[in-house]
Parts: sequence; C-alpha cells; structure tokens
Amino acid sequence: MNRCGIFDSGIGGISVAREILKANIFDEIIYYGDTARVPYGNKNESTIIRYSLEALEFLKNFDIDFLVVACNTASAVAVEELRREAPFPVLGVIEAGVEALKNEDKNSNILLVGTKRTIKSDKYQKLLQKNGFKNITSIATPLFVPLVEEGLVEGEITDKIFDMYFEGIDKEKIDIVILGCTHYPFLSKTFKKHFPNAKLIHSGQAIVKMIRDNFNFIQKNKTSIKLFSSDNPEEFKIQAKMWL
Amino acid sequence: MNRCGIFDSGIGGISVAREILKANIFDEIIYYGDTARVPYGNKNESTIIRYSLEALEFLKNFDIDFLVVACNTASAVAVEELRREAPFPVLGVIEAGVEALKNEDKNSNILLVGTKRTIKSDKYQKLLQKNGFKNITSIATPLFVPLVEEGLVEGEITDKIFDMYFEGIDKEKIDIVILGCTHYPFLSKTFKKHFPNAKLIHSGQAIVKMIRDNFNFIQKNKTSIKLFSSDNPEEFKIQAKMWL
Repeated sequence: MNRCGIFDSGIGGISVAREILKANIFDEIIYYGDTARVPYGNKNESTIIRYSLEALEFLKNFDIDFLVVACNTASAVAVEELRREAPFPVLGVIEAGVEALKNEDKNSNILLVGTKRTIKSDKYQKLLQKNGFKNITSIATPLFVPLVEEGLVEGEITDKIFDMYFEGIDKEKIDIVILGCTHYPFLSKTFKKHFPNAKLIHSGQAIVKMIRDNFNFIQKNKTSIKLFSSDNPEEFKIQAKMWL
Repeated sequence: MNRCGIFDSGIGGISVAREILKANIFDEIIYYGDTARVPYGNKNESTIIRYSLEALEFLKNFDIDFLVVACNTASAVAVEELRREAPFPVLGVIEAGVEALKNEDKNSNILLVGTKRTIKSDKYQKLLQKNGFKNITSIATPLFVPLVEEGLVEGEITDKIFDMYFEGIDKEKIDIVILGCTHYPFLSKTFKKHFPNAKLIHSGQAIVKMIRDNFNFIQKNKTSIKLFSSDNPEEFKIQAKMWL
C-alpha cells in the first residue's frame, strides 16, 4: 500500500490533490490542511517552518511513503527543513513547477504570479535562473486568493483586477505563466483570456509529471483520499469535496 | 498609571487604537495583534476562544486595567469567556457598536457588514433586536479586508465590488451602516458615496464613547502606545505606524 501525504496551509492544495488523484499512482492520499492558521503567505519564515514541521509530525502517523508540499509559501521556505526531518521523499510545488519547464526555450518570457511571501522569497526566480531562464517578470497578486474563495473566477471584477496587476505588461508577449499559488488554477480561464499566447504552469500537473519521471510508483486502479484539517473539519470537507 | 490592553487578530484593530489614542483617557495602550494566526473570520468558535484566552494571558503581563476586544470576530464569540477570566473590565466592539445607536429611531434601516463568521454568529443582529431595532439587513463582505490591505480603499474596482455585494439593496434608504470589521473604516469614503444618507458606525469611536459614558477614567495629557504581535513584529510595527 503506497500512501502520499499532501500538506497545504488550507484548502488550496486540493487543486494539487485533484491531479494526484487523477494520476492513480498511489493507493491513498492523506491530505492535511492547516486551516487553523491559514494563510501562510503573509507570515514569517521561522513561523512557516515551525508550522510545516508540525504538519510533518501529524502526517507521519499515517505511514506515508511520500510527501507533497502543495503550499507554495511552505515550498518556498520549508522544503529543506522538511527533507531533513522526513524519512521519505519530500517534493515541493516550486521545484516541480520549474522542472516542468526543462524543455522550454531559455529565452521564453516568463510571468510568475504568487503571494507576497512567495514572490519575496525569490526561490522560484533563483531556481529559474539556475536553469538558464533569463526573462522573468514576477508579480505578487494577493487579491487572487480571496477572489477564488468568493467564487469570482471570471467576470468584470476579476478582469479589472487582472488589468490592475498586469498594467504595463505586454500580455501578448508572455510565453509562460507560472501559477505560483494553489488557488490560481481556478482562475485558468481568466489567465488564458489575458495571456492568449501563454502556456500555464499548474503546480498539480507539474507535481504528477515530476513523480512519474523520478520515482517508480506502479500505476494503480484507484486512489482514495482522506481529508484532515486543523480547524473546521466539517466545513473543510464540504468545500474540499466540491473542489475535487 | 492607567493601561488599556487592545487585542485584535492582526493589524485591523489599529483603527480602534487610533481613536483610543486620540481620546487621551489612558496613560498607555498595550496593543497585541495575533498576526501569526490572522484572520479569525473563517475559523471555528472554539479555536477563536482559545486564541483569545491566550491573548488575555499575554496582556495580563502588562498590568492592564481594561481590555478592549477590537476584533469583531473575537467580540462575537469570545467576550463572555474573556470576561470570566479577566480581573478587569472587558469591552467588545459589538456591544459598543450597538450602544452607539441607543438614541437612534428604532425604525431606522440598518445595514450591518462584516466577515462571514461575524455575520453568521448573529451576535450583532440579536443585540440590535434586543435593543428594539427591527429593520436589519446583514451582509458578509469578505473581499473588503483584502481590498483595504491592498490599499484599494476607493476607485473603480472597489465601487464594482460594492455594487456586487449590495445589489438589490435600496442604498438611499439605508439610515445606518454598521462597519462590523476593524478594516472597514478605511473604506469610509466609499461607504459614504454608496450610502449617501447613512450614518456610519465606527467601532473605535463607539468604544471611546462607551468608555467615557460608563467608566471614570481621568482625562490625560497624552497616551503612549506599545505594539506587540505574534509574528512579523518589525513588519507589523511599520504598517501599524503608517495606519496610526
């Protein structure tokens, strides 16, 4: 029995869980959302590391073989610490997102969007540069999470907020948009509208590809999922099931 | 030496601290923002009570004589528990907000806005009804907090989000708007534009009035303030000073 643990600050990582579920490479997913302390995006690095290590301790109880850090903010600051403490492989969405670009032209115009903390951490940018990419624009878009949570994934208000954040950017020239926050794939339709020539990089799909390429998990018939959260478990389950 | 403790889930309570500072009824304010776990608005009642009692323990170290619960969500669910544990008076923004209406016509059309948790708690609504008010419309407006935090306190996007939340409401007929979240006073200009005939109830001003009316604190020459937060203290101080 192969079990994959997924850790996220809240509900957003469900967009990653959905892709791993569809891939059928594990028997079971154990998802833990730290809803009692969400969001991580505006918190201190040492606090995020502490919360992440607590999540690891919780997930260790389930005999997992693999840990996916679905939260971009935790991936930006806590993956090394988690790897040091975990007796199994740990994979973060940032590494996976950059790995997904390995066959792309190094001169591509890349737009990276995420929370303030993810953008400020500079982790994506450094990893992209290390992989030879030169043309990177990064923009923090903190209103996108509440927009998704309010269900405003498209429409006039969403378009105007896109116009505000991406003012001054030649949208047609963007080749790749990295959706650097687990909530953002729910805005895919609006991203495609505003960046008609761009390929969207979705953390969940990137994680699945990286697991397939680097680990030998046997294809299964079906993956089941168990959901846990540090607060509001009932409400969390209802919302998670809706998103799945 | 009279000290007032102010507890909020984060930075929003600064709008309350500012009014208490201006009033000069204490020698010192000790402000504690639980930025490591902000926001409270979407968390469970028992979790919010636990966090509030921890804040009380912290503030007890400063020999305070009075506690103001600036967070509407904590006021909605934790004031009774705080009062049971505190050796000094505890005042919440909800009681103060309703008290501020005591001379208003009971037939006034009241619009109450706040976070999902505050609105769902029904505490404002019940207290308003207990005080004889009959015409109450309550609307959860979760996008207002991120709007304020992004500095979008007026303009086209803000207007469109107001139009969305208040669609179907006869705005000219609203007599009183209760700003049921500490972030909302920063949106006062937009509220006045959309509700031209309404009186805005601001928690900070309501708290000051209630303290003056009910407690005998001597007028001081100057109030000083000390700021504490459970995370990002430096960033918190910079932002708080800007808002003050």
